[in-house]
Amino acid sequence: MLRVPYDELNAALYRAMQHLGLSDDRAAHCARLFAETTRDGVYTHGLNRFPRFAESVANGSVNVNAEPTKIAGFGAIERWDGHGGVGNLNASFSMQRAISLAKQYGIGGVALANTNHWMRGGSYGLQAAEQGLFAICWTNTLANLPAWGATTPTIGNNPLIIAVPRPGGHVLLDMATSQFSYGMLAAYSKRGQPLPVDGGFDSAGNLTKDAAAIESSQRALPIGYWKGSGLSLVLDMLAAMLSGGHATYQIPLDPLRETGLSQIFLAIDPSNLGQSQEMARIAEGILNSLREATPVDPGKPVRYPGEQTLQLREENLRLGVPVDPEIWTKLKALVTPNGS
Amino acid sequence: MLRVPYDELNAALYRAMQHLGLSDDRAAHCARLFAETTRDGVYTHGLNRFPRFAESVANGSVNVNAEPTKIAGFGAIERWDGHGGVGNLNASFSMQRAISLAKQYGIGGVALANTNHWMRGGSYGLQAAEQGLFAICWTNTLANLPAWGATTPTIGNNPLIIAVPRPGGHVLLDMATSQFSYGMLAAYSKRGQPLPVDGGFDSAGNLTKDAAAIESSQRALPIGYWKGSGLSLVLDMLAAMLSGGHATYQIPLDPLRETGLSQIFLAIDPSNLGQSQEMARIAEGILNSLREATPVDPGKPVRYPGEQTLQLREENLRLGVPVDPEIWTKLKALVTPNGS
Repeated sequence: MLRVPYDELNAALYRAMQHLGLSDDRAAHCARLFAETTRDGVYTHGLNRFPRFAESVANGSVNVNAEPTKIAGFGAIERWDGHGGVGNLNASFSMQRAISLAKQYGIGGVALANTNHWMRGGSYGLQAAEQGLFAICWTNTLANLPAWGATTPTIGNNPLIIAVPRPGGHVLLDMATSQFSYGMLAAYSKRGQPLPVDGGFDSAGNLTKDAAAIESSQRALPIGYWKGSGLSLVLDMLAAMLSGGHATYQIPLDPLRETGLSQIFLAIDPSNLGQSQEMARIAEGILNSLREATPVDPGKPVRYPGEQTLQLREENLRLGVPVDPEIWTKLKALVTPNGS
Repeated sequence: MLRVPYDELNAALYRAMQHLGLSDDRAAHCARLFAETTRDGVYTHGLNRFPRFAESVANGSVNVNAEPTKIAGFGAIERWDGHGGVGNLNASFSMQRAISLAKQYGIGGVALANTNHWMRGGSYGLQAAEQGLFAICWTNTLANLPAWGATTPTIGNNPLIIAVPRPGGHVLLDMATSQFSYGMLAAYSKRGQPLPVDGGFDSAGNLTKDAAAIESSQRALPIGYWKGSGLSLVLDMLAAMLSGGHATYQIPLDPLRETGLSQIFLAIDPSNLGQSQEMARIAEGILNSLREATPVDPGKPVRYPGEQTLQLREENLRLGVPVDPEIWTKLKALVTPNGS
């Protein structure tokens, strides 16, 4: 495994973003979001995602310098148009806007239409938590999951993020409504390993742990069967209806041209409700009760969502961030034309 | 099966609530919530729940005439104390307060501490949807579910409700974060039927469809395994931290004395964002795409969350609401002392 210092990764991504045509400030912000994602161990949506991001810029799905504009607003809720701009920049902008509204009104919401893949959804949860706010946000996606009772993909796996600010490390749920992503299924089928739990149906309609069979049937499983299917549907409805943008069924099915997404960003500022010390104490009590639970495996204490991320971040900052050598070499070649 | 007219059910429940000591207006409101729940086919949380509700009043867990008071507020978000009052009345009050805040600010939130079981969570989603608003609300519960990686119950099944207003029938997700409730497990084990999908672990730690084995191990499954476990945890954190109330680990484990719950009510009023007709059109497009999906069973078109409820409601209003004869007889005896 190749590890590179975080700053070197960030700098290379910055030059790569400039190379794609992003203006300086935008290139720096976009690069930082990609670099932080890799630093935090979410490898699928950081550096490894750059080649696909570059392709979506090249094919015109992502308009690198488009900026969101406000379409409508009333008090603490606003509707914005992302104009097909860079997904992570649009999302970061929208969460910051929700944070500003929450600072003014206690709670704030932004519905964003016409945007692109936000990469790691957790980025925007952490963005709020770093500023002391709670956040709930989600995105719709292309149709990649059959609704419960259907055999063909009709709903998205619509990632849902919930962030809880905490002095000792934010708690971060970052969860797609499918049990496994297609990326994860591909990793298991490549290794020929069974999934840890059922991940979908085979072509005969039986639940299976065979990732290749699910890739072939295209019948991945929503979390909790009918429950995740319903959750995915209502998240799509809120995102599309409140933003006035596209719903899952209207989004192009080619992942390289997955554009016109709708997203919701909610932030809650607890600082004017009093009791901030009390709030921290409540969080510690809950996490302690989790730590004190009897683990299935005595060597593995129960963890909270986001706990592993904090450990990986620390490790990757100390030892260098792991990168795929092939993608890293290509990125370096892109930004240093003489290949040095 | 015994069916009784809706108005008769509602009237009997009203007298029963008066009998429990609720003042007139409160008795009428509380009875209506119980009656509507039964009318909508959510039999577990309507009339059938009344005996348990009466016991929790008798043992002092529910204070029938306590009303919520405001503890703190800033703009569109408020913190209230439920003073151990009637769960469905406190919840209905809090959602109405969130709706008022949303009408004023576009979005509004109420965090409610020190309340009781809200019975059917969907009631409060529908309450907002009937007034044209979107709603998201959830409650914590006693610890009835092992966190992922634990063998002992440490998290609640924290029901999450998301409601989407729609002229042709509201879309209503009303979902606990456990795959099956213990009530459902009991029904399957009584009938000796296997669950439709894995519902938990047996005492040997294997996933199983055997409801009795799960009742015995007390290791029910969160939806989506580790995902539902994380979701349940963060819902508990937001509810307890924002309300300043109790978290799941602090709630008494006896279901008859499950009190001191924390709940969150969020409402979004889209009416000032323009495009209300456009919004209805977007909803129809999404539901049409669902109806057009290829069903697993050709005779069973794919349904949206809440669709079956609307059918059951219509049927129960037409034919009478199905009641458990034993519970109905007891209720009638309670409210008409001569048994007539």
